[in-house]
Amino acid sequence: MINEAMYARGAESSKIREIFTYACERKAQIGADKVFDFSLGNPSIPAPEAVRSSIERSLAECAPEELHGYTPAPGLPAARKAVAASLNRRFGTSYSMGDIFMTVGAAASVSCALHALTSPGDEVIVVSPYFPEYKVWIESCGCTCVEAPAKLYTFRLSVGSIMEAITPRTAAIIVNSPNNPTGSVYSREVLQRLANCLNEVNRSREQPVFLISDEPYRELTYGAEVPWVPDIYKNTVVCYSYSKSLSLPGERVGWVLVPPACFENARAMAAIAGSARALGFVCAPALFQRVVADCVDEPCNVGAYNRNRLLLVNELGEMGYSVVEPEGAFYLWVRALESDAEAFCERAKRFELLPVPSDSFGVPGWVRVGYCVSYDTIVNSLPAWRALMDSYR
Amino acid sequence: MINEAMYARGAESSKIREIFTYACERKAQIGADKVFDFSLGNPSIPAPEAVRSSIERSLAECAPEELHGYTPAPGLPAARKAVAASLNRRFGTSYSMGDIFMTVGAAASVSCALHALTSPGDEVIVVSPYFPEYKVWIESCGCTCVEAPAKLYTFRLSVGSIMEAITPRTAAIIVNSPNNPTGSVYSREVLQRLANCLNEVNRSREQPVFLISDEPYRELTYGAEVPWVPDIYKNTVVCYSYSKSLSLPGERVGWVLVPPACFENARAMAAIAGSARALGFVCAPALFQRVVADCVDEPCNVGAYNRNRLLLVNELGEMGYSVVEPEGAFYLWVRALESDAEAFCERAKRFELLPVPSDSFGVPGWVRVGYCVSYDTIVNSLPAWRALMDSYR
Repeated sequence: MINEAMYARGAESSKIREIFTYACERKAQIGADKVFDFSLGNPSIPAPEAVRSSIERSLAECAPEELHGYTPAPGLPAARKAVAASLNRRFGTSYSMGDIFMTVGAAASVSCALHALTSPGDEVIVVSPYFPEYKVWIESCGCTCVEAPAKLYTFRLSVGSIMEAITPRTAAIIVNSPNNPTGSVYSREVLQRLANCLNEVNRSREQPVFLISDEPYRELTYGAEVPWVPDIYKNTVVCYSYSKSLSLPGERVGWVLVPPACFENARAMAAIAGSARALGFVCAPALFQRVVADCVDEPCNVGAYNRNRLLLVNELGEMGYSVVEPEGAFYLWVRALESDAEAFCERAKRFELLPVPSDSFGVPGWVRVGYCVSYDTIVNSLPAWRALMDSYR
Repeated sequence: MINEAMYARGAESSKIREIFTYACERKAQIGADKVFDFSLGNPSIPAPEAVRSSIERSLAECAPEELHGYTPAPGLPAARKAVAASLNRRFGTSYSMGDIFMTVGAAASVSCALHALTSPGDEVIVVSPYFPEYKVWIESCGCTCVEAPAKLYTFRLSVGSIMEAITPRTAAIIVNSPNNPTGSVYSREVLQRLANCLNEVNRSREQPVFLISDEPYRELTYGAEVPWVPDIYKNTVVCYSYSKSLSLPGERVGWVLVPPACFENARAMAAIAGSARALGFVCAPALFQRVVADCVDEPCNVGAYNRNRLLLVNELGEMGYSVVEPEGAFYLWVRALESDAEAFCERAKRFELLPVPSDSFGVPGWVRVGYCVSYDTIVNSLPAWRALMDSYR
């Protein structure tokens, strides 16, 4: 019998992907330069040259049967050691390769972490607005997705709203900073307050509430500090991906870190390995694990995104749009010009502007503008944004 | 709370992986040439030169942000078209790219197919001995794994035992030919008898029983015909991977085919897309989707495996071992010299021979010898096999 829940997941598809598909079709109709596709988080910055060099070196130096062979399920030791060493250099930690499990990208990281740290019937808290796939993965674990709204208008983390959402069934909280979709970066101070509250809550629980810190945008910031969350709250499992920092979203490679100080870390790590096995992940792609080992400290070219960011924030602001100035990631969160964001996006389509309405992120009335596009796309889109604003006057 | 089921999956690990890990350690102790590791299905034949050329061409011709970018969830059109065209050429079918969903390897193919075609509480039949991960994936769907024994000693498909295992709760049957672990290839005649029986069973059901045909070894045969299963039974979903035919097991790329004639094919395909999404597979690795598009018809160098096969079958047979002559794949199924295969494997270890005991494949008293190793490994292992036999006299 065809599974109804899976059918629904496939048939509904994601709103983001739906708009992306429309953008591709529309570009074919009227020309790629006439359509302003702000839907997907597909980096416009090329992968660094070091990625190509790493692939070429592997092809030259490594026998193909070794290069493309199965890796151990937790990943190539060289990749895991390189990741641990890089974290240790940057955050003064003392992780070892045993604390790192290489994954098939951030989606796999979060999916495996959720399967490992929850049981059916549990609740997992997300901060709304949130990346829509969190809800899909949480529900796939048989858990309930509980939304804790961020602060209105600033979209910073609200410790109060998280505390209100906690119940005895709360297994984990997903935090995502730099944030998709708002670009907000959680400060050390607010994370410390969250940790204090969670430590207080944990006193009356047998098992602590886990923080799942989903950090694919860690390197994409414009000056703000991105604190190392396990230093602030010890029961933090970190999920990472090279999709954004190395511009490798299609290659599917990332990791999960279970820090040694985390509650029952060895059991948690075994459960992550078990989740990967149970879901059908055998190992992270082998060639790109070597790329990670070689390129783990490659700097991310945030300059290009910053140029896009400043242009959009300034120009849209001058036109009269309400925007949340992003401190990280490559999304601009813009107030829709009517209460129904879907209707606003339909009208924006008439001007060939394709942002994503906020409803699937769990809040009404806003849109996400992915500025991981070329600078020219942004420059060329400005008259359309102006015309869209004028159409509401 | 750490999930007990996932913890158990991770802590038990797979027997195959456990022996492989022991082999690595032992090789480090006494030298790689002294240890005869027959545990893993990691091809010893290098990927064809065309794979390297394809990667080099992609690196040279394709902008990195396009090359490594997200692909559509069902895969790059070029890859899906190439797969459909290859199947059409080989099997006289008329599939289109819409019938193909690119996956993160065969494990993802089977896992997604199972999630799509079953609901919790259903039963899925496997033919024992069977690839142990089937049970893990079936149970991850909340289903029961029901074993239908193959015919004793020949290990061919027993239609009778499958029919006995069918109940109103049977959602699907996994068939795997060429077979891991026995090397047996299911004939057209036996598959036709199975199809006739299933068609009969389906008359009294609202929904048909699905066949999930897991075919990573399709190209690895030594003369036997591997019939195209959807031609024989229309409700067949085919799972494939390039791990064996292109020697790319670590790169994780394969596909699921839902043929147009399959029951509710559009809904089934949507459910597969939904399963991939729900489990955390975003897309198959992008660079290797291009490799598939380029290399889909590369011939598999079965000659080398055949040489290994003939040597092992002849020599072990002459020593007095009972073996099942494999018609495909790269495993030899050998009767243990005592009823307890685990004990037999422990004794084999003393001679540095590392086959896999049959218990985790669902039958007692046999071992799997993976001959996807170098010819020299087999030649050098022969005295050890002889000494092992002598130790039982």
